[in-house]
Amino acid sequence: MAGEGISPQEVESLCKTPHPSTKDFMFQQTMYRIKDPRKSIPFYTGVLGMTLLKQLHFPEMKFSLFFMGYENPSDIPHDEKTRTSWAMTRKATLELTYNWGTENDDSSYHNGNSDPRGFGHIGILVPDVDEACARFEQQGVKFIKRPQDGKMKGLAFIQDPDGYWIEIFKADVVC
Amino acid sequence: MAGEGISPQEVESLCKTPHPSTKDFMFQQTMYRIKDPRKSIPFYTGVLGMTLLKQLHFPEMKFSLFFMGYENPSDIPHDEKTRTSWAMTRKATLELTYNWGTENDDSSYHNGNSDPRGFGHIGILVPDVDEACARFEQQGVKFIKRPQDGKMKGLAFIQDPDGYWIEIFKADVVC
Repeated sequence: MAGEGISPQEVESLCKTPHPSTKDFMFQQTMYRIKDPRKSIPFYTGVLGMTLLKQLHFPEMKFSLFFMGYENPSDIPHDEKTRTSWAMTRKATLELTYNWGTENDDSSYHNGNSDPRGFGHIGILVPDVDEACARFEQQGVKFIKRPQDGKMKGLAFIQDPDGYWIEIFKADVVC
Repeated sequence: MAGEGISPQEVESLCKTPHPSTKDFMFQQTMYRIKDPRKSIPFYTGVLGMTLLKQLHFPEMKFSLFFMGYENPSDIPHDEKTRTSWAMTRKATLELTYNWGTENDDSSYHNGNSDPRGFGHIGILVPDVDEACARFEQQGVKFIKRPQDGKMKGLAFIQDPDGYWIEIFKADVVC
């Protein structure tokens, strides 16, 4: 039966009723590694419009974390400890991991869309795909797919400074 | 200056003010590929407590998408078209991509935590890490790190059926 897929009915039958103890679980973060915060921070703030929710530095282990997300900057607590708890309880954050020194070596990170595949992309819902993409073009962003390319009109894929794919779409275009 | 990291002040200086047109952008989805929905759907619902928000099947291209997330099942619209728009406008969804037939071949997906590295994990905020992990143990979930292991007490990493890492943490434990 290889290549036959799965029926919607079978998928529904596979769904378990969530256990009551999971009621307050939250999908809080998606983490990937970045080579150079001097490129990634301007990209996620200046291009995608995210806010730096919290930065954390671990000198002993020589890495830093940057939590990014769509929150109102005026909501950020002034006290740093409170800010940490606040950031870690926001829904849908992007955790960028920076291992010190990677900006100066020959390494590069794998975006998961060539072998060996796995992770695919993050996706940003936007009110106007064409308007967003026109601005990205002006900013020199790399495109995997422009809105007018291919079969699926009206959605785009761009790349961050490490080559990770970011889907840009609106609610009525599906992928 | 390799290995010196970056100062908090420099990170702040790298942050751009979000463009007004990004005000309504939403981090809507994180996509990765799964080998077998008959394993993944029971895991994400029965273990992690997510709900199937929407399933989409593309017979011509022989793949299916499953949007998972923490939403109240009673909020799911009955009309399938409305359900699609609803699912695609929920914040923090997990998009599982199933290429038909992979459940029967020798392939496996790459979780990004061995070479070539890139993607790291998704993270689920939970009210009680020990309680959540005790239940996961009973369900036979694979652990990368139990709450009491290693330096960072109180947080855990488990694996989904494809080996993707999932961090289980509460707000006052940081990573």
